[in-house]
Amino acid sequence: MTNPVFEKIAIIGAGLIGASIARATRAYGAAETVSLYDADLDVRQRAAAIDLGKIADDLATAVADADCVILCVPVGALKAVAAETVPLMKAGATLTDVGSVKGQAADALAAAADGRVHIIPGHPIAGTEQSGPEAGFETLFRNAWHILTPLKVDGEEYAEAVSRLESFWTQLGATVETMDAARHDRVLAITSHLPHLIAFNIVATAFDMETVEQGEVVKYSAGGFRDFTRIAASDPVMWRDVFLNNKDAVLECLGRFSEDLAALQRAIRWGDGETLFNEFTRARSIRKAIIDAGQDSGAVNFGRNQRKGDGDEKA
Amino acid sequence: MTNPVFEKIAIIGAGLIGASIARATRAYGAAETVSLYDADLDVRQRAAAIDLGKIADDLATAVADADCVILCVPVGALKAVAAETVPLMKAGATLTDVGSVKGQAADALAAAADGRVHIIPGHPIAGTEQSGPEAGFETLFRNAWHILTPLKVDGEEYAEAVSRLESFWTQLGATVETMDAARHDRVLAITSHLPHLIAFNIVATAFDMETVEQGEVVKYSAGGFRDFTRIAASDPVMWRDVFLNNKDAVLECLGRFSEDLAALQRAIRWGDGETLFNEFTRARSIRKAIIDAGQDSGAVNFGRNQRKGDGDEKA
Ligand SMILES: NC(=O)c1ccc[n+]([C@@H]2O[C@H](COP(=O)([O-])OP(=O)(O)OC[C@H]3O[C@@H](n4cnc5c(N)ncnc54)[C@H](OP(=O)(O)O)[C@@H]3O)[C@@H](O)[C@H]2O)c1
Ligand SMILES: NC(=O)c1ccc[n+]([C@@H]2O[C@H](COP(=O)([O-])OP(=O)(O)OC[C@H]3O[C@@H](n4cnc5c(N)ncnc54)[C@H](OP(=O)(O)O)[C@@H]3O)[C@@H](O)[C@H]2O)c1
Repeated sequence: MTNPVFEKIAIIGAGLIGASIARATRAYGAAETVSLYDADLDVRQRAAAIDLGKIADDLATAVADADCVILCVPVGALKAVAAETVPLMKAGATLTDVGSVKGQAADALAAAADGRVHIIPGHPIAGTEQSGPEAGFETLFRNAWHILTPLKVDGEEYAEAVSRLESFWTQLGATVETMDAARHDRVLAITSHLPHLIAFNIVATAFDMETVEQGEVVKYSAGGFRDFTRIAASDPVMWRDVFLNNKDAVLECLGRFSEDLAALQRAIRWGDGETLFNEFTRARSIRKAIIDAGQDSGAVNFGRNQRKGDGDEKA
Repeated sequence: MTNPVFEKIAIIGAGLIGASIARATRAYGAAETVSLYDADLDVRQRAAAIDLGKIADDLATAVADADCVILCVPVGALKAVAAETVPLMKAGATLTDVGSVKGQAADALAAAADGRVHIIPGHPIAGTEQSGPEAGFETLFRNAWHILTPLKVDGEEYAEAVSRLESFWTQLGATVETMDAARHDRVLAITSHLPHLIAFNIVATAFDMETVEQGEVVKYSAGGFRDFTRIAASDPVMWRDVFLNNKDAVLECLGRFSEDLAALQRAIRWGDGETLFNEFTRARSIRKAIIDAGQDSGAVNFGRNQRKGDGDEKA
């Protein structure tokens, strides 16, 4: 076990990500004290009940004396929370976030800057379809990427703050990458935001087919549909905020996706098997690349068949 | 262990599904003898090497004296294979298939009818993203649905043949449902065919983004994209044939999907957070219904985090 990177961290927003950071920080000794605050009293009480750390009754108490404050709230709440938080922070401390969008999140954080604290936006490429304090677990960031999008700030102090934050995330088990916010948003638009939008959409389409009952969709979902329902179960507030705050990059991907889909549609309509075969063959190769890169388990069918007991689960 | 349902079955096409039927039949004693034939010499040799059953060198040998012949070839090959197979079958035997489309598959099978054999189209709602004889495993059909779409044939003999085929699939662990072929194709278009098309398409879109490198897509795929790559790794020939043979139902679903997506696109463009929130909230509920119906494991993140070792896999 290495030494704690920070003496005290404050986590604002005790949901899936905040709770996971709290658990990981304590499990891997990345900070001596973990203080949490959530705007929602119910969430604070639930966080206390499962012993996530020191639950503060107000923002000021959570933030007081913290060396690092991590905002784990939906992207749309970042601006207001950052503005409230910065004046409460001690000089020289670091303010970071975990928002899934970085361009507008970085702007929201930067708008709160008062020259006393270091502002370093971030985003862990790790999560699940669940939310709330109970959903958090200590291994969430293990072997995951964590992206930092530092602001254009000169000086050694800022560079040092960035490298300290890197150490923190490394201690939670992540591998840290640095890139600019615009690039982050373009990459994540295709690797995360578009897939979620598509998943939400296909579920909606399935609901609205008058010719097929919802019960049938559920019953025969093992044909492929069920795969999409996992990410379609993700938090609606979080995802609303993602799309509202990464509009341009998402619309760009979406336009291309629709064009490509129109081409497949045309191939189906005209019975052009060659185009279908070629596109499907090309798509096949990426799965192997992802498994080889350690970005997914190679277990067939996401390991469902291996986990299956005797009669306790449909395949 | 119950008694064998058939004395001898013949499996034509020794890929994922054929090999799984062979393994399951022997493991659960559903037939005394399992004979296999595949048009591809290489597949026959590989099937022999892993001891899938009696590998025949020609169709006639495989089919001779079989009580039930199961065509496990791509949908596009069914018509030719059925025409070749029926004259080789003994009178009173059953011909069935496992094709993922049923309307045109049923027609292809029915076209081969000569009044001597019982033709009963079928489709197991079970599979994986892999193909070939090595991909087969005996538990594939356990707790899965198997759909039969019997032809409109009167008489007790046909009804008896259907009920015998039901017993066979039940013995492999499946639950059998009977419906008409058109309904099957409408239901599967939304629960299986459209999801696959969407998955193939998003992978193609990701490949073609000039602004994001392929390596980045792979690297940050844990944000959601990786989920889609599993079904996009499925066999291109099989899926080409599915789309060519279930054109109308797929185009109908696809039209609706694109309409719904256009509405979400518009909501993003105009910053209509309420529409996004409402649609996402609605989509969320179906995951629970699917888990409650035993159609997927409730394990968060498809159980990836639980399976994760120390540093051997990225999340
Ligand atoms: N989920 C993922 O897979 C994932 C992955 C990477 C990054 N992220 C990012 O992580 C952030 C949090 O997501 P999450 O999944 O942890 O969501 P979550 O489980 O819904 O947690 C968010 C928490 O923040 C609280 N909150 C909202 N506004 C607040 C405010 N003004 N002050 C203090 N607390 C406030 C919420 O309380 P209420 O009960 O009032 O809502 C909720 O408890 C988001 O920015 C998201 O983009 C998520
Ligand atoms: N995969 C799934 O998830 C799934 C699920 C349910 C139903 N199905 C259906 O099951 C059927 C088989 O799919 P699969 O996944 O098992 O595919 P697969 O692993 O590719 O196996 C198909 C086998 O059939 C052989 N074949 C092709 N034409 C033939 C012919 N004329 N005579 C004899 N053998 C021939 C192929 O040989 P080659 O080496 O020459 O190609 C291949 O070995 C398809 O109709 C599919 O729609 C698949």
